[in-house]
Formats: sequence, structure tokens, C-alpha cells
Amino acid sequence: MISQKWQKQIRLLQQKKHRQESGAFLVEGGKSVRELLTADFRLQALFVTDTFYKENQKLLDEQPFRAELVTEDELEKVGTLQSNNAALAIAETKENLPLRVESQEFALVLDDIRDPGNLGTIIRIADWYGIKKIICSTSCVDAYNPKVIAASMGSFTRVQTYYVPLQEFFEQEKAQTVYGTFLDGESIHGLNFRESGYIVIGNEANGIRPENEDFIQKRITIPRFGEAESLNAGIATAIVLDNLRR
Amino acid sequence: MISQKWQKQIRLLQQKKHRQESGAFLVEGGKSVRELLTADFRLQALFVTDTFYKENQKLLDEQPFRAELVTEDELEKVGTLQSNNAALAIAETKENLPLRVESQEFALVLDDIRDPGNLGTIIRIADWYGIKKIICSTSCVDAYNPKVIAASMGSFTRVQTYYVPLQEFFEQEKAQTVYGTFLDGESIHGLNFRESGYIVIGNEANGIRPENEDFIQKRITIPRFGEAESLNAGIATAIVLDNLRR
Repeated sequence: MISQKWQKQIRLLQQKKHRQESGAFLVEGGKSVRELLTADFRLQALFVTDTFYKENQKLLDEQPFRAELVTEDELEKVGTLQSNNAALAIAETKENLPLRVESQEFALVLDDIRDPGNLGTIIRIADWYGIKKIICSTSCVDAYNPKVIAASMGSFTRVQTYYVPLQEFFEQEKAQTVYGTFLDGESIHGLNFRESGYIVIGNEANGIRPENEDFIQKRITIPRFGEAESLNAGIATAIVLDNLRR
Repeated sequence: MISQKWQKQIRLLQQKKHRQESGAFLVEGGKSVRELLTADFRLQALFVTDTFYKENQKLLDEQPFRAELVTEDELEKVGTLQSNNAALAIAETKENLPLRVESQEFALVLDDIRDPGNLGTIIRIADWYGIKKIICSTSCVDAYNPKVIAASMGSFTRVQTYYVPLQEFFEQEKAQTVYGTFLDGESIHGLNFRESGYIVIGNEANGIRPENEDFIQKRITIPRFGEAESLNAGIATAIVLDNLRR
């Protein structure tokens, strides 16, 4: 059973303010919790169904932490997922430590990504393409939002985020090549990317904000062959990274 | 004001069964309704806010059909969108007419895509890459679902869908090259696509169903450079089409 105290904490952790104050976040669902348990996060609580326990007994027995058995109903009642027949964990958030690219490395820079589903998808895509660092404008949705965690499908354990005012960040990274996606840039189909740099992805509706445009050295574009006006931010990220890695 | 009769119809059109019986569907939001009005759909009803009317007066005056002025509150109360300050239309669905590729043409085949957001996104991506035909297994979510229409961002007016049992379809299209996305196929980064054919995208969780695998002539794969286990169906579609068009 989930105690009253933990039920209250789980509800409160759906708010950004409370996550920041308590330094904790929710991880829900079988895949996400399994990935969490194999990563280096500190757990505060772990609730699992009998089925999940049986399927992951070895992994759970290795934890320094004892899982509490609960029912599917309890998980769904208290958590954010419509269906969760597996597990829910409360883990400690990580410090917001500065990130920058090393030599022969690319990182993403997100300018004002507001939708949690989009951020989670971008984290998952970054992980697919071996991008380990994402720099987020302070206006981006919180990476510890339960919907971001769910949409990242476990990739939140492998991709780091760093929230910083972007102008301050770019001022410090002037030696690096900064690529930005626009509708009027150079086609990524013919482009030779340099050995390292940043790829800036803009807001869902408005793209990269004018105050950040001056920091973009290479304006790049995904060629269009039909008539749709735009592509979703997650889709654009995937296509740019696929072209980068070819 | 939206009459009781239309309010009831709008609510009923959120159900697939009722859409099929009445041959009508909902289009909501400014962008989607604008695209609808410039396409060849027959309208049954059109409700617009004062703001939308003023911004689109010329387009609305050209219609054979008179728009009724309503408030934002009315649109949000009766429709499916959380916020809609623009318009809602009821239009006639199109017949489920057979589609096949012509010479030098590619089409998508969707095997069991269940999520309406994914189907809408796939329609939008197809439109971006100039793909005009999507063949859907009969188990795919209905393309006239309001969430599909919303996620397609107007591209539903330019991309046709055809629902058919896939095995029946593939039997008739044996002369064409059928590409299918798998985890163990040939990398799309090195692949020379033929001049025409079909690209099969599988179910979100389970991929292409075993009973359809025999019809796939070319197993293709999106190369992975990191550790995420999979990519979302919409993302996979975008990356394959980008590689096709290079």
C-alpha cells in the first residue's frame, strides 16, 4: 500500500515548484523504472506491482532499496499515467551542472520548447543519435515533468540537460559553430557539418527567438518536397540529427 | 449561436461509428478550417468567431456557404479542442477509394497505427515530403478522428488515405517494391531507393505484423548511434522519407 505521506508527495511532485523545492521527481511505468534502476539516480521510494516484481526480481533484489508491493489501481489512482500495471519511483533530481561540447561532439540547444511531449521525444531522439547533452533555455518546460520523463522512454537516464539563459551560454561558447534551423537556410542534404558544435531547435510555434538569432553562425533548413507549412520540433530534430550522423 | 441540433451532431461526430453512419467529420481550429475552405470538401456547417471572420473575410465570402458567428466559449464547450478561438466546421467525408502508386511515385502503408496523434503527424510529414497517398490497414485509427485532423495541421486536405486489409492490397501490388522498417534491415543511409514503391511503417509497440512480413521485399533500418531502444512511428516515417528524397 502507498502510505498517505507518499500519496501526498506523489501528487505534489506533479508541480514544478514542488519538484524544485524537494529535489525529487516521479518515474512511472515499467520501461522507465527499469531504466532508472540501472542508472545512477538515488531513489527515495519505489512501488511495484506483483507482476513487475516477478519479471524484474533480480534487478530489484540488487537495489539497496526495498520495493513496496502495490496494486495497479493504486498506481493509476495516485500517478499521472492513465494505465500503469508496473511501477512508480520517486528519485532525486540531479544538479543543474554546466554542459558544453568537447572536441568532436555535438549537443542540442533548445530555445523555448514548451510542450513536455516534445521535450521527451527530443531526449529520446538525442539518445538514438548518440547526443548526450541538451542545453535548454530557462523558458523550456522542466525536464523532470512527468510527461517529459514518460515521453523520453527511459532516455532521460542517458541524456543530460542544462538550463541556462541562452545568450549567456552563447557568449561563452563563441569558439563553437552554432547551427540553427530556419525556413530559409542552407539545405541539410548538401551540408558538411563540422566536427563539433551546437544545433539550435526553436519554439514549436515561433521558431528560434530573434534575440538568439545573432548567435547562429549557420542557418540550416530541412528541404521540403510538398506543401505542409512546417514540421513539429521533435521531427525536425530527428531529421537534422540523421543528416548530421550520415 | 450553435443550435441544439448541431451541438448534438458535433458531440456525436467524436465517435467513429457516427462519422461513418453520417458521412461527416469535424474540423476545428483556425489553420485546419482555413485549409478546409481552400480544398474540395463539401461543408455541412461552419461556425466562426468574430475574430476569425474578420481575418478571413474574403475566403469566407467566397464560400457557397454562410458561416455562423459564435463565441470562443461555445466552440470550446462543444468541440474537442481545449482552446479554439477561431472556427469549427462539419464537412462530408470522402469515399474510401482505392489508391496505388503510379510510376515514379512512393506511397506509405501503415500497418496498425493506433494513436491518432501519430497518424495526424504521419499525414503532415507525408505532405512535407510530397507523398500524396497513404494506405492504412483496417485496424489503423480512423483518419477522420478529430485528433488526427488536428495533428495533421491541415495536411489532411492534401494527403489521401485508403483503408484496406493489407494482405489483399499487397496481393494486388506484387509488381511494386515494398520497403518495410525493421531493426535488422539494410541501413537507409547507404540505400538507393527504386523509382517507385511502398514504404511500410509498423505499429507503435509491435512494428510490422508477422502476417505482413512476407510481402516486404526490402527490410530497411534507421541506423542508431546511441542507446534508445526505438523511435516513435512518426519520427521513423520522417527519417525514412528524408532519406528517400535526398
